[in-house]
This record gives sequence, C-alpha cells and structure tokens, in this order.
Amino acid sequence: MMDADLAERVRGGDRRALARALSVVENDAAGREALLRALAASVGRAHRVGVTGPPGAGKSTLVAALATAWRKAGRQVGVLAVDPSSPFTGGALLGDRIRMGMHAGDEGVFIRSLATRGAAGGISAAAEDAADVLDAAGFDLVLTETVGVGQAELEVAEVADTTVLVLAPGSGDEVQAMKAGLLEAADVVVVNQGDRPDAEATRRALENALALRDREAPPVLVTIATRGDGVEALRELLDERAAPAARAALAARRLGRARRRVRLEADRLRAEAFWSRHGTLLDRLAGEVAAGRTTAAGAAARLVQEAGR
Amino acid sequence: MMDADLAERVRGGDRRALARALSVVENDAAGREALLRALAASVGRAHRVGVTGPPGAGKSTLVAALATAWRKAGRQVGVLAVDPSSPFTGGALLGDRIRMGMHAGDEGVFIRSLATRGAAGGISAAAEDAADVLDAAGFDLVLTETVGVGQAELEVAEVADTTVLVLAPGSGDEVQAMKAGLLEAADVVVVNQGDRPDAEATRRALENALALRDREAPPVLVTIATRGDGVEALRELLDERAAPAARAALAARRLGRARRRVRLEADRLRAEAFWSRHGTLLDRLAGEVAAGRTTAAGAAARLVQEAGR
Repeated sequence: MMDADLAERVRGGDRRALARALSVVENDAAGREALLRALAASVGRAHRVGVTGPPGAGKSTLVAALATAWRKAGRQVGVLAVDPSSPFTGGALLGDRIRMGMHAGDEGVFIRSLATRGAAGGISAAAEDAADVLDAAGFDLVLTETVGVGQAELEVAEVADTTVLVLAPGSGDEVQAMKAGLLEAADVVVVNQGDRPDAEATRRALENALALRDREAPPVLVTIATRGDGVEALRELLDERAAPAARAALAARRLGRARRRVRLEADRLRAEAFWSRHGTLLDRLAGEVAAGRTTAAGAAARLVQEAGR
Repeated sequence: MMDADLAERVRGGDRRALARALSVVENDAAGREALLRALAASVGRAHRVGVTGPPGAGKSTLVAALATAWRKAGRQVGVLAVDPSSPFTGGALLGDRIRMGMHAGDEGVFIRSLATRGAAGGISAAAEDAADVLDAAGFDLVLTETVGVGQAELEVAEVADTTVLVLAPGSGDEVQAMKAGLLEAADVVVVNQGDRPDAEATRRALENALALRDREAPPVLVTIATRGDGVEALRELLDERAAPAARAALAARRLGRARRRVRLEADRLRAEAFWSRHGTLLDRLAGEVAAGRTTAAGAAARLVQEAGR
C-alpha cells in the first residue's frame, strides 16, 4: 500500500517522493521490488544516456552543460553520478554537485549520487534501478555519469540507451579507452577541451581507430564544455537517437538489457537456493582443493554432479 | 601427456617451461585445467603476498626492494603484476618491469604481467591460477602487485595469504582505501615515502583508524623503498606470518579461498548448463520486462519456477 502510494506520488512528479523512492531502491532490499513493480508500467519513456571517460576529461562540466541545453528545450533531466571505485559517494561526486549548482532550485533537473552495492554487477544494477525510478517520474533524459575507464564503467555503459565517451585531447586516454573496450561500446565520442591545440589531431586519431570497429563508426564531436561550444550539436545528435525513426534500434537495445538483467537475477536466485542446500558438500570439496588433491575446476565439476543426483 | 611433461619441467624449476605454463593457464582454456591438475599436489608451499594501494604510493619500488631482501635471504621470488583496470598489460606495468630490471639475469626472481580475462572475477581467478603455477615451480614467495583501490583490487587481495596495503603520506589515499574496504582487508599497512614530513602523522592516523576494526589491528610500518629503509623489518614481519607457528591461521585462510573458488566455478558450470536449456524462456520473459509488464526480479522468479517444473 505504502509503495503503491509512493509510486503514485513519484509518477505525479513529487520531488520529495522521488528522493525517498531512490533511497528505497538503493537501501531497502525488501521495499525495492514492490516499488519497482508498482512503477514498471511507467518505465521506458526516458532516453538513458551514459556519460563515461577518464577523470579530468570534463565529464561533469559537459553533463551540466547538456542539462542546461535540454532545460532550454523544455526537457526534464535526471542525473545519476556514479563512482564505481568507491563504495561510498564523496570526493569527485561532491565536486559534481557543486558544479551542477547552477541548476539549484530548478525542479526540471534532479541530481543524485549513487553508492555501489559492493558485489560485482552491483553498481550497474543499482544504476539501472535508479534510472527506472527517474524514468517513471517523467524525466525525459536520464544521464548517468561514471568515473574511470575500467570494467565497472563498461557495465554501467551497458545499461544506457546511448553511451557517450568523453576524452581530453592528447592525454593518451584514447589508448586506454580502446584497451578497456570503452571505445567499442561508445555510440558517440566527444573530444572535450576542444580549445587545446591537439584537439583536432585527437579527433582524427579517434576517427581512424573507430573506422576499424565491426559495427558502424560512431560520430566524433569536439566540444568546449566550459563555454558551451558544441554542446547544442551534441544535444541534437543525442535527441536524434531517441527520435521515432530510431525507435527500433532503441527497442532492440532495451530488450538485450532486460535479458541480461533477468539472467543475472535468475542466476542469483538459483545460486542462493543451491548453496543453502549444498554447503556441506562445498566444504568437503574445498578441503580437497586446499589439500592439493584436486583443482577448483575439478572439484566444482564433481560438486555439480554429486548435487544433481 | 604434454601437460604432465610440462608440469614435470615446471616442478623441476625449468624457467622456460614456467613461462610457457603461465601462458597456458592464461590463454589456453582447454590446457589450463589439465596443467593445474598435474600441478595440484605441488601447490601450497609458497607464501602468497598481495601488495595493493593507489598509484604513486611506490608499490613497484617496494616490491622490487622486498624481492632484493628475500633474495639476500636465499629465497626465490615470483612477482605477478596486475592492472585490473586494463584488459591488456602495458603502461604502468612496463614501468614495473623496468624498475625490476635490477633482478635481470637472476633465476631466483621471476616477473610476469597479467592481463584480465574480461569478466568480473576473471582477474582474481587468473591471478590465482598464475600463483598456483609459481607456487608449484618452487618459489618461496609469490608477490601479486595490483594498481588502484577498487573492487578488483579487493578481489585480488582475497587470493593472497597476506595482504599488504601501501599508502603515501598525506595523500588522502588512506581515506579512499578505507572507503573501498581495503583497510579492512589489509594484514599489514605500509606508509611508504617515509622521508616525507607528514609520514608520521599519516602512520598515527592509520593506527587510529585501524583500532576501530572488528578484528586485530594490523601493524603499520614506515618504509622508504627507494633507499631500502624499513624493508628488512617488513620482510621479517611477512616471514613471521608464514612461520610454522602461524600455519593454522594460514590454512584456514586457504580453505576459505578454495571454498570461494570452487563455488565460483560451480556457479559458472551450472549457469552454462541452465541457459543452454532455457534461452527461449529467457527471451520471452525479457520481452515482458522490456514491455513494462513486470520487473527483472519478478521475471527471474517466474523463470526459475517455470524452468524447475
């Protein structure tokens, strides 16, 4: 009842209810599922944009500038700031909030920092739950900003409709991004700090690298986020990806995302049930591995076989 | 056959066979298991020390200095350099190899950079496999060096017998390490760059923070790795942890490690078998999530139930 009520107020655009709903999905394991279920039918309208890239590329400034551009166009913008390297929010994210201060008092912009839930895959699940809530609350855009170029960023990128990779010119970050597979995952690449002399060379190098991908090469844009240069062009490009003509591609991507999420959750449920029954067997076989009588893989194969009997 | 042969040569101390064996466990999914099985009975003698901490703390220099100290004591040292943020080795790791150059030509020191296998948990499994090979090859110490203070570092720390956290004075890194749970996982804490004026204040701050832990507070040592100061004391402290008197604690830790590893591998096997049978069901339920008719958790619960029938 309480959740149906809370869900109703979230859908109605109540900002205090929204803040509370985000806390529920983040911290209240029991309440999360009921709330997400109550919101499910209202999810799927927002365009989810993941903004990723190394520290220092200017992501936060770009996100703030994009939020401004979308506000001018009359759109509502939700921002999720995620630091997968830290289980708590703080540091860089506090800075983000300060930079987003220009939007203070504007009900059309909502900013939230996200903590990780610890386990691998935890941060992308948390980001997706929070994005669902913002989506159901009527935000046209949900921007998820991550810090860094590692595995966690790739996972967060996977929960976006559109992934924007932001790089600084001449930083060598493009090499690192390429190695981490982020360039492969990017739908749009932005060279920010475009007033630096090597911006154009970096753009060309990226275009050459991107031409080698299997799928269609993403556009590479140059921006100067601090002055707003190029931000309007980026906003238009992003809006095109959510336009009716692009709906089929977006729907396919969302289906793939739902598939991953159901699979992950089913794996978790099955593991929970399995290990509550076979803990003793696990102890025995782990003992054999520790004693050097078998390998972990050998013990696992035997365990699965014996448990199946 | 080939693997029994290779395993025999690895156990005999053949360095070329060792390099090849490490490539097999890293890249050859089919050969890995046979080789690890052939080596299993020889695994468990090495003291595995994980060295972790933020970039710039001087981990590589400390690892090189520790290797020197152990060589002087007549021990053989294997070093695994891991960068979980990058799926390829390079950058910092190349630097590590150069700094370790002082050990070039010494058969008692073996250095290897480790690439990640992509998936979450992949890097800790890869590090553990490689440590098993070095262990079976007769190295007395296996040092695993990681870069950064995130989730991947925690996972790598978990595969060590002893985890050393290296911090620089006054960097604020101790706060970040605390947040990431690394301080909780550390068995020994080292304040490196001890010639900096704030080294002593950092040591005291760490001791205060560590006194708040549930379990026994780990010792905090101050070193100047570039000059070798404090390195001998650190080596002695680490050797004490592998001494006969400490065997029971070490054995318990190894059993826990084997348990985690068998469980992870069994989960993987079970998921593989399950999804090869229930892909169609997954597609259907993912479609319902994408359409907003249910949540991922609701769909997963139904999937597990329907599949179980």
